[in-house]
Amino acid sequence: MQTVPRPLQSTAMVPDPVLENLSPTVEVPPVTPGKPQVVIIGGGFGGLYAAQQLGRADVEVTLIDKRNFHLFQPLLYQVAMGGLSPGDIASPLRGVLSAQKNTRVLMGEVTDVDPEQQRVSLKDGRTIPYNSLIVATGMSHFYFGRDDWADVAPGLKTVEDALEMRRRIFAAFEKAENTTDPELKKSLLTFVIVGGGPTGVELAGSLAELAHHTLRNDFRHIDTTASRILLIEGMDRVLPPFPPELSARAHADLEKLGVEVLTKSLVTDIAGHQITLKQGDEVSTLQAGTVLWAAGVRDPGMGGLLADRTGAERDRSGRVIVSHDLSLPTYSNIFVVGDLAHFAHQGDRPLPGVAPVAMQEGKYVARLIQKRLQNETLPAFEYKDSGSLAVIGRHAAVVNLPWAKLTGFPAWFVWLFVHIFYLIEFDNKLMVMTQWAANYMTRKQGSRLITEKVVEKVEVTAAGDR
Amino acid sequence: MQTVPRPLQSTAMVPDPVLENLSPTVEVPPVTPGKPQVVIIGGGFGGLYAAQQLGRADVEVTLIDKRNFHLFQPLLYQVAMGGLSPGDIASPLRGVLSAQKNTRVLMGEVTDVDPEQQRVSLKDGRTIPYNSLIVATGMSHFYFGRDDWADVAPGLKTVEDALEMRRRIFAAFEKAENTTDPELKKSLLTFVIVGGGPTGVELAGSLAELAHHTLRNDFRHIDTTASRILLIEGMDRVLPPFPPELSARAHADLEKLGVEVLTKSLVTDIAGHQITLKQGDEVSTLQAGTVLWAAGVRDPGMGGLLADRTGAERDRSGRVIVSHDLSLPTYSNIFVVGDLAHFAHQGDRPLPGVAPVAMQEGKYVARLIQKRLQNETLPAFEYKDSGSLAVIGRHAAVVNLPWAKLTGFPAWFVWLFVHIFYLIEFDNKLMVMTQWAANYMTRKQGSRLITEKVVEKVEVTAAGDR
Repeated sequence: MQTVPRPLQSTAMVPDPVLENLSPTVEVPPVTPGKPQVVIIGGGFGGLYAAQQLGRADVEVTLIDKRNFHLFQPLLYQVAMGGLSPGDIASPLRGVLSAQKNTRVLMGEVTDVDPEQQRVSLKDGRTIPYNSLIVATGMSHFYFGRDDWADVAPGLKTVEDALEMRRRIFAAFEKAENTTDPELKKSLLTFVIVGGGPTGVELAGSLAELAHHTLRNDFRHIDTTASRILLIEGMDRVLPPFPPELSARAHADLEKLGVEVLTKSLVTDIAGHQITLKQGDEVSTLQAGTVLWAAGVRDPGMGGLLADRTGAERDRSGRVIVSHDLSLPTYSNIFVVGDLAHFAHQGDRPLPGVAPVAMQEGKYVARLIQKRLQNETLPAFEYKDSGSLAVIGRHAAVVNLPWAKLTGFPAWFVWLFVHIFYLIEFDNKLMVMTQWAANYMTRKQGSRLITEKVVEKVEVTAAGDR
Repeated sequence: MQTVPRPLQSTAMVPDPVLENLSPTVEVPPVTPGKPQVVIIGGGFGGLYAAQQLGRADVEVTLIDKRNFHLFQPLLYQVAMGGLSPGDIASPLRGVLSAQKNTRVLMGEVTDVDPEQQRVSLKDGRTIPYNSLIVATGMSHFYFGRDDWADVAPGLKTVEDALEMRRRIFAAFEKAENTTDPELKKSLLTFVIVGGGPTGVELAGSLAELAHHTLRNDFRHIDTTASRILLIEGMDRVLPPFPPELSARAHADLEKLGVEVLTKSLVTDIAGHQITLKQGDEVSTLQAGTVLWAAGVRDPGMGGLLADRTGAERDRSGRVIVSHDLSLPTYSNIFVVGDLAHFAHQGDRPLPGVAPVAMQEGKYVARLIQKRLQNETLPAFEYKDSGSLAVIGRHAAVVNLPWAKLTGFPAWFVWLFVHIFYLIEFDNKLMVMTQWAANYMTRKQGSRLITEKVVEKVEVTAAGDR
């Protein structure tokens, strides 16, 4: 209980002679001059798998990311719910790639690509030359033109996003406990999740478990099991990319967990904590203390930059339309993989923005670059769909495999197995498994810290800039 | 790689009709009227152990904390070094106390104590009446009157402090990797830890392990094993509260790890990244990219408030001087336990600010309150010193037991055992043990995320205030 507020810590206020004295490095020299330079922008699934595939190739790989870690995004919703810590699902990029001697990791923010000079520019003024460029920067969430909703309805793309969701969810319960006003209590115990895709379903299901099980004995002035959790989906069913029967089962499973699922419903306005819903011609409003955003994606800027510099075309979400080998039609040594790529040479729709697509695309491009060094090539990229899955809650998931559809406990078990299997590759397996086992047995969520709010970007740049 | 910056998320900018409409609750009603009300301020070791001891007593307990979790502070330095995640060493207070039906947890910030009316006031306007009050709010770090140093040299008291240290340490390596200026590289790879007590020794030792082992293969343009790590202590030896032979051993162990230990040395100025040192009459300066503060404690404000309201006396660090039963001489129903209490009825110096003292004091006061309800009392508080310990690094620690002094591997093993034993009580055992086992075997530190900077306080108040 400090009563004297501690001064805010910020190096930004301090003059920094060490960092200000020095001229920036202009061109980052290769570690091994003469080797073909492969530059990868983005250390998500697409970029990291490309880098790993190039580990034994006779090239020099430079992986550029704004952050120093790879994030296992499929489990980010568990950080938002306090079930896992950020460290459990993040792996330091340097650690993952440290044994790969031909690869360096460069922390920085790309601000330009020059396809003629074959180099990328960083915000701090440095440039990195490339022979082949792989762009794997992903998408950000989209508020359908209402960016002002971002303040009220945080999305879920970064660790900071997840911690902000966690902060709001647990603070809502604390505030509800603290007030004696019944209307306000009701508002604070109302949670709206916008978007019925996999992320929305996972958030709604795990929030329902939190309110109905984990927290049920933790408060004295509220009944957390009386919380309202609404999942709002514009289409006629949740999990639209899944077969209708799996959507129906997910819908039923969510309702059994206590989630109110509203399909064919649109959020038309968010004003403070008042949400306006439109279902057909019917318009209604409700008060919700917490709104979580799980709808819509858009190009965060890299797609636009690439289009501008290379003449590449984009779809209406801003994804870059790539050739059958994932290169740009205008520059065959620039590739786009993962969520930012629109690959439409297989069916009439772009491939879904999920980890397996990004991994396969990253690996394909890495192999293609190696082939080209030998003046060979590869057949067109083809996505091997090994199935898709979404988890709803404890013992409940839906799995759509090419040869089978699973629901309930078997689906949940497959979901668990697949995630542990993939996590093995990033050394977090042990921690997540232990935490899951502990959570499963105790139904406690040990990581439900309400930590301070994050409002400023960290920048790690060439230590001479500015 | 977003090139378009995402708008900062802040609810502060959004008008909030739900939260603004409502009148604050003035007095928080007891759950069970008529029961003696015990109010505990602070959920650290002192407050939490008092609350647990009162679990079966015929009283109603209200534990007030600004945060929603108990923090296992002895391992906070491992969060700063990326070895553990905050969630691993934090336990939600509600979770720890949920089975204790006579106890409620109240998240809020105490701004006043009225010993005549017997009530405490929270920042949001609420008041909570008490029959007995236990103040266990701890101490904050102290820059010896140079609060401006806080920006350059973060201390280690909160989760946010640890994340700030982690951010700076790993960002320093990234910046060093990014620059080609040899002078700047050298500055960025220089780390100064101010204060040679247990926290300073733990930070220096684990930072040396990080630079010399964990990160040694992770960079391509710097050699992390060339990092300079300086530990600055004003007294003539490190770990001053320990016997001289253990201090000497800790000194030798640190040097073996590659730490430069400077005793009888004072930091007389910090200007940007230039540190001025005074050793005897000799004054020198050095450039250090990162300075970590582990020296000095002071009353964060609660001690002053108590002194003001009750006439209690304080020592020169601001600790409240308590009677032989840990109550205030002026108000026998107000107790101070833990770091904020100055108990001098046992030797001429106050008891050290360590967890075992706080635990024993918390339990003692809880038992005394129960006794008094039966019109009985307890003999004066007596601290049972079961030994003190400080860890230096892998296989190196010093342990001072009443009957033996241990160093090296046996001391390290005792340190490990004791920490695991205490963690068992807060359900994080499994996670920390697993993470430790993984770290021990792989020497990786999986939680070395550079996350965004925290600059704004979260407040969870009665949801009607403001």
